[in-house]
Amino acid sequence: MKATIITIGDEILIGQIIDTNSAFIAKSLDKIGVQTHEFLSISDDKKHILDTFSSLQNKVDLVIITGGLGPTKDDITKHTFCEYFEDVLIENQDVFAHVKEIIEGFFKRPLTQINRDQALVPSKCQVLFNKMGTAPGMWMKKENTVYISLPGVPYEMKYIIENEVIPKIVKEYKRPYIIHKTILTYGQGESLIAERIENWENNLPEFIKLAYLPSPGKVRLRLTARGSEKEILENAIEKNVSSLAKIISDIIVGYDEDETIEVVLGRLLSQQQKTIATAESCTGGKIAQVITSVSGASKYFRGSIVSYATDIKVSVLGVLQDTINNHSVVSAEVGKEMAIGVQQLMKTDYAIATTGNAGPNKGDADALVGTVFIALATPDDIIIEEFNFGQPREKVIDRTVNKALEMLQKEILKNL
Amino acid sequence: MKATIITIGDEILIGQIIDTNSAFIAKSLDKIGVQTHEFLSISDDKKHILDTFSSLQNKVDLVIITGGLGPTKDDITKHTFCEYFEDVLIENQDVFAHVKEIIEGFFKRPLTQINRDQALVPSKCQVLFNKMGTAPGMWMKKENTVYISLPGVPYEMKYIIENEVIPKIVKEYKRPYIIHKTILTYGQGESLIAERIENWENNLPEFIKLAYLPSPGKVRLRLTARGSEKEILENAIEKNVSSLAKIISDIIVGYDEDETIEVVLGRLLSQQQKTIATAESCTGGKIAQVITSVSGASKYFRGSIVSYATDIKVSVLGVLQDTINNHSVVSAEVGKEMAIGVQQLMKTDYAIATTGNAGPNKGDADALVGTVFIALATPDDIIIEEFNFGQPREKVIDRTVNKALEMLQKEILKNL
Repeated sequence: MKATIITIGDEILIGQIIDTNSAFIAKSLDKIGVQTHEFLSISDDKKHILDTFSSLQNKVDLVIITGGLGPTKDDITKHTFCEYFEDVLIENQDVFAHVKEIIEGFFKRPLTQINRDQALVPSKCQVLFNKMGTAPGMWMKKENTVYISLPGVPYEMKYIIENEVIPKIVKEYKRPYIIHKTILTYGQGESLIAERIENWENNLPEFIKLAYLPSPGKVRLRLTARGSEKEILENAIEKNVSSLAKIISDIIVGYDEDETIEVVLGRLLSQQQKTIATAESCTGGKIAQVITSVSGASKYFRGSIVSYATDIKVSVLGVLQDTINNHSVVSAEVGKEMAIGVQQLMKTDYAIATTGNAGPNKGDADALVGTVFIALATPDDIIIEEFNFGQPREKVIDRTVNKALEMLQKEILKNL
Repeated sequence: MKATIITIGDEILIGQIIDTNSAFIAKSLDKIGVQTHEFLSISDDKKHILDTFSSLQNKVDLVIITGGLGPTKDDITKHTFCEYFEDVLIENQDVFAHVKEIIEGFFKRPLTQINRDQALVPSKCQVLFNKMGTAPGMWMKKENTVYISLPGVPYEMKYIIENEVIPKIVKEYKRPYIIHKTILTYGQGESLIAERIENWENNLPEFIKLAYLPSPGKVRLRLTARGSEKEILENAIEKNVSSLAKIISDIIVGYDEDETIEVVLGRLLSQQQKTIATAESCTGGKIAQVITSVSGASKYFRGSIVSYATDIKVSVLGVLQDTINNHSVVSAEVGKEMAIGVQQLMKTDYAIATTGNAGPNKGDADALVGTVFIALATPDDIIIEEFNFGQPREKVIDRTVNKALEMLQKEILKNL
């Protein structure tokens, strides 16, 4: 079973917004064994949309379209659907009642014609209920291809995919098995890993594919097995993952594809009933923000001091003015005092501190652009590392966040 | 002049990573008047790549491909280029010297065969120098279409686009004019704005298109004019933007498409030599992180206290235990004391505080999931607003950040 995912909108084609909908939909389809053949982003142009629809008919089983369903004049998907399916728009009573409830009941505003038009759908479509907004999803079939139209707003699209589209596909279609297993590694580059596992990779069975997914500081290795016999696939994946684990055990930190390092850390800290705080300079609060993006973080995360101005390192964190004068504000010594300072102030087991120059300009300190010190205070020790992450600014910040979380994870695992 | 942008990689089609490269490339092309016709994401499959290349030949002027150039076995773009252009790989001496310098000079590691293979390129290609990494970009022409292959790593791709691809296009091709103007609005939804500007929108000239780009708490309106006479386009855009500004002056906060609210705020605070700090609970440091994502933020941002645990609101920010007991930790009163606390602690002109329940579960307080209080301390006043941003967690955090920055901007503009 094959799908193509289309996003409609000029704002995507001029790079003004980044399409995250297609990835979400592809991931959801992948989990139920539907393979995504292509993503396409096209303009808000009727002819372009119609040509694309025709080119996909009978080529794929599913075409999932996001965007172009809003209430404003630049949204034309619904009218284009009518033209493609030789259909007319009619007012759907359930959708109308729902739109009325949102506008009058929740927003306490009078219903306008523009709101009312949201309830118009092609007469032959099956409506996919959109609890999160006013624009309904639509499911229509032409010969062997189903066309599904969804709103472009991510929260609305996600709701309809999870509650309407996926259950309907699972109910109505038979699908093959696709099994993925992702291995998270830290600290070595793609080439080096490739050399280490070359023999193992050459011996993978035909039906298993390996992909390297590098990002700053880490590489994910993804194994994908496809076939009709679930058990064979599972056994083969398990066998190959365990032989791989023997070769690169020193750099493997986790296995689940959805499991980010902050999720793994959260579980480790909760299990051990340990707490953490951060004292951040160059990362500007990003470590705290990443840790608290995990729901339930209040169990182990107590807080952070973002000491962007130098004097706040002294007044709030208790760094000694002498240490700053003698070693500069970007130094191992200041990082150490920041970590210990926040550990004591917030009474935590662990504390992370960062001080560095993210660039692009030289700051207060003499340190080169890209230089960062990360200090990790543990219940009985303090570890400090120096890095140069180069440029641009965004990369320095991201790599510092990754490195800091990696150092913390290593230390917690060591104390298990 | 028309372009199609292709990303190659199974990791995109299973939703494991989000493609941000295409948006960057499209934006860069748009600035020099090259229109992007489509984005395509396809698999690491030779036949799929070749079919796609053929289907675009003589249909568009430029095909820009990212991904599939790394050193590992799942990267097949280079071999596929050879097949499509009936060419062979040869070692490029300049690229080889550069790879050698990176591996031996910078990483201090011996050169391996995998590293050396990075210097192989099709014999007929023009190499696009990649200062940021080992995989070179390639420029090859077949009949009327130029095919450009770039590495998938964003920092490398960006370097080659900015320093090689764009200058080469500007030098070698004549292009039409495309002018965009984006108007940032805050606080009203897409439908309401559409009603207010309906007459104005209906009177736009044929060559100007309007798009609504909604995101949590804000809507951007984008005008695009296309044509051959630069001056006519500029005058028409200017005239229509100024008539629009008269209709919705109450909700317009800025004009530049690249200008985010944090950049606008940074400029305002710098100009007025005012400083800011934040005290964050439910936002977990994200307001600080957004403010410090702007380079030069140290001029006006002094720091943040992320007081995730309730007792840190008391011990570090000086919130009274009685206030928490009497009003609960998610309350206007606690928000107010947090804002004043951090304003005094960090000696700033402005201070933002957030306290709320981002969900998905009920926390310490009685407040409903999604409830957030934002307090803004100014040099002579304190403003507190209550919101309910619903769910999911990620949306509550993002909307709180947007709302807080919007409140700050309004207040600064008022005091100008």
